[in-house]
Amino acid sequence: MNTRGNDNLPSNRPPTQRDLDPHLRRYAQRTVGMTASEIRALFAVASRPEVVSLAGGMPYLPALPLDSLADELAQMVSSEGMAALQYGSAQGTAQLREQICEVMALEGVRAHADDVTVTVGSQMALDMVTRIFCDPGDVVLAEAPSYVGALTTFASYQAQVVQVAMDDDGLVPGKLEAALDALAAQGRTPKFLYTIPNFHNPAGVTMAVQRRGEVLRLCAEHRVLVVEDNPYGLLGFEGKIYPAMRASDPDNVVYLGSFSKTFAPGLRVGWALAPHAVREKLVLAAESATLCPPAFTQFVVSRYLAQHDWKGQVKIYQEVYRERRDAMLAALAQHLPPGCTWTHPTGGFYVWLTVPEGLDTKAMLPRAVTERVAYVPGTAFYADGLGSRQMRLSFCYPTSERIVEGVRRLAAVLEGELELQRTFGSVRPRTVFGPQSPSPDTA
Amino acid sequence: MNTRGNDNLPSNRPPTQRDLDPHLRRYAQRTVGMTASEIRALFAVASRPEVVSLAGGMPYLPALPLDSLADELAQMVSSEGMAALQYGSAQGTAQLREQICEVMALEGVRAHADDVTVTVGSQMALDMVTRIFCDPGDVVLAEAPSYVGALTTFASYQAQVVQVAMDDDGLVPGKLEAALDALAAQGRTPKFLYTIPNFHNPAGVTMAVQRRGEVLRLCAEHRVLVVEDNPYGLLGFEGKIYPAMRASDPDNVVYLGSFSKTFAPGLRVGWALAPHAVREKLVLAAESATLCPPAFTQFVVSRYLAQHDWKGQVKIYQEVYRERRDAMLAALAQHLPPGCTWTHPTGGFYVWLTVPEGLDTKAMLPRAVTERVAYVPGTAFYADGLGSRQMRLSFCYPTSERIVEGVRRLAAVLEGELELQRTFGSVRPRTVFGPQSPSPDTA
Repeated sequence: MNTRGNDNLPSNRPPTQRDLDPHLRRYAQRTVGMTASEIRALFAVASRPEVVSLAGGMPYLPALPLDSLADELAQMVSSEGMAALQYGSAQGTAQLREQICEVMALEGVRAHADDVTVTVGSQMALDMVTRIFCDPGDVVLAEAPSYVGALTTFASYQAQVVQVAMDDDGLVPGKLEAALDALAAQGRTPKFLYTIPNFHNPAGVTMAVQRRGEVLRLCAEHRVLVVEDNPYGLLGFEGKIYPAMRASDPDNVVYLGSFSKTFAPGLRVGWALAPHAVREKLVLAAESATLCPPAFTQFVVSRYLAQHDWKGQVKIYQEVYRERRDAMLAALAQHLPPGCTWTHPTGGFYVWLTVPEGLDTKAMLPRAVTERVAYVPGTAFYADGLGSRQMRLSFCYPTSERIVEGVRRLAAVLEGELELQRTFGSVRPRTVFGPQSPSPDTA
Repeated sequence: MNTRGNDNLPSNRPPTQRDLDPHLRRYAQRTVGMTASEIRALFAVASRPEVVSLAGGMPYLPALPLDSLADELAQMVSSEGMAALQYGSAQGTAQLREQICEVMALEGVRAHADDVTVTVGSQMALDMVTRIFCDPGDVVLAEAPSYVGALTTFASYQAQVVQVAMDDDGLVPGKLEAALDALAAQGRTPKFLYTIPNFHNPAGVTMAVQRRGEVLRLCAEHRVLVVEDNPYGLLGFEGKIYPAMRASDPDNVVYLGSFSKTFAPGLRVGWALAPHAVREKLVLAAESATLCPPAFTQFVVSRYLAQHDWKGQVKIYQEVYRERRDAMLAALAQHLPPGCTWTHPTGGFYVWLTVPEGLDTKAMLPRAVTERVAYVPGTAFYADGLGSRQMRLSFCYPTSERIVEGVRRLAAVLEGELELQRTFGSVRPRTVFGPQSPSPDTA
């Protein structure tokens, strides 16, 4: 029955991409925007033991007490297995949605469980929000830089991303206002502002509290919804929990949360808290996407929250990550060549590093991997190819000793690149390994 | 900060839908096609203990050995928890993809694990296939009737569904050819044919083996991809496993599979097997949708397949469902009034019932629920409002005794409707409970 293999292949012509994929002309327009992310290519590299990966954002799970978890889960299956293994509600279990409201209350959020939708990680929440709001060509505002997974989702819905500058206090309200005014002058209203106010991925900065009010006011004035993505909010290093933007504007903020960083990402349990009418649409969208989120992982999280000292576990995570953040900042100060600058995160997983002018973090990645250190090039976090002088460094997963060694290797790579630059002038782009999105600024 | 609540509400005007949802004008076009399914409204009803639900498609999980599952799960967490709780590959774990190939081999499928993508239930696989192939307005072919969850997904991508008639041997090739020719005459090529060849949901019929070749040939000739959805293939009652369509046409079939019916749906583990180039796009789409499927549930399934007599468990399921199918068919023959006809499934979960002319299964549903029996009205399984004389009856979940009682109640409802019809003429549409898609044929 294999009648299709070569049906696009005239004779006397070398094969093209079309010949290699007989389905090529069938794909939807949106697949044009679906390209492999730089982070994805790096996962393979990062798994080699000799490489110090400062690339991935994997939580440090050895901090979890596996044996007591195993006992709790066995009890859960014995006593609640019939429900945990069965189809469930598209919105998520009532018990977990109640518990999620208690978690969000730590950030000043007053919410009803009926307005929570449980999703397969907060990535799915973001996908559903984009699905219900974005037609092709619609504008979404995001910080510059922004989370690569969000940019990928926006691209898959053919949304146009306009990125707005940040400084050490997060998104700059004046720049946001300028962007809103410029779009308004074109007759365009963005569908929403996507923001990560706390311990930003990848920038490592936190939006100042008084700015949150300004950002909310600007968005309300311009009738732009706010999508507040807050996976790291409880992972501050200074004993401080910032108030959620949702806490002061329940009607114009969709809040996205996750247990991936406070518990474990392999369960893929996240959520969206949305104004009631939006929540109804979210549930319908989620139902068409997966029928329902896994009841099983929801029962696991519910039991963990109920039976375990989960806040104590968050404290353990905080302390692990603070120690590693300290190790990374100290190593950067000690080893990096002059001309490098970086952010000083007070929580979360990431430092955002800017290298001297003339260097290109994407072009130098193969050399870095050869030197057994990995990072994510800055271009991954921009929709428009900016970020060639930046990189994201993660301190969440490797030990402090490995982090110091990784930074040492990175410093040697940067020294080598600067030496090349002094000898031959500005470094030229070269072929990079693995699947890459095309980027206009690799010069 | 609540500045948006009433911003669309001029004075002296009664509130409208727009006033009640200040976000209304922000939604994407595709939300117009997102309406609550009839099945969803029924889940609430079906959960009342006094109602015999012949509506839901929930597997009969008490057949599972919970205590040994609990032990296996605890061992898994203790020994593999670090990987099971961590982020994983967007494509799914290598071990599970290998095991999935072994499962599909039972249906004659020869496949490489690299061409398998694990998804959050096969619903997500269907969502991803639609995402990569369907632009708004594209045509998708499906059987008439077809799985309600597929129709919902197609609607959420604004695809136009053209449904093709079935008979007791499944999809009718001559009708498929006519549909393909009619579309070709309009210059339209469907993106794919969505088919459930085995123990069809909702029709309860199976595509005859020789027809499978004809359908594949027609689709190849018309350059239409085949999406073969096969959640029930191993749940035949006659000791027979039908060959997958994918087995005879690897290049033009995307096969969707699931552990929801052979093991447990609460884990939400399904998959797509696709030609290699399509698989690459599927993984990119899945990554933007959820980053990765839950590693945890994949480890649970892998351990179950490796440690447990899973084929023996499938046999147990087969026997439970066969006994219940027998009970349902016998009760239908004994109790239903003349003029009713129904299918005779040789596997799966469903019987498709046609009631006498003049009756309307959607309009009579409230009366049925009052009489403590529930089913899914046939209109749920058509994109165009057909199906008003049909209903889907599930025999998977209630015991045989309950099934007999449910059919008895249903027969009484039908008798009552026929009596009304004899007295007052054809039954008129009336208000139905719960959220409903509008349907043109409720007269």
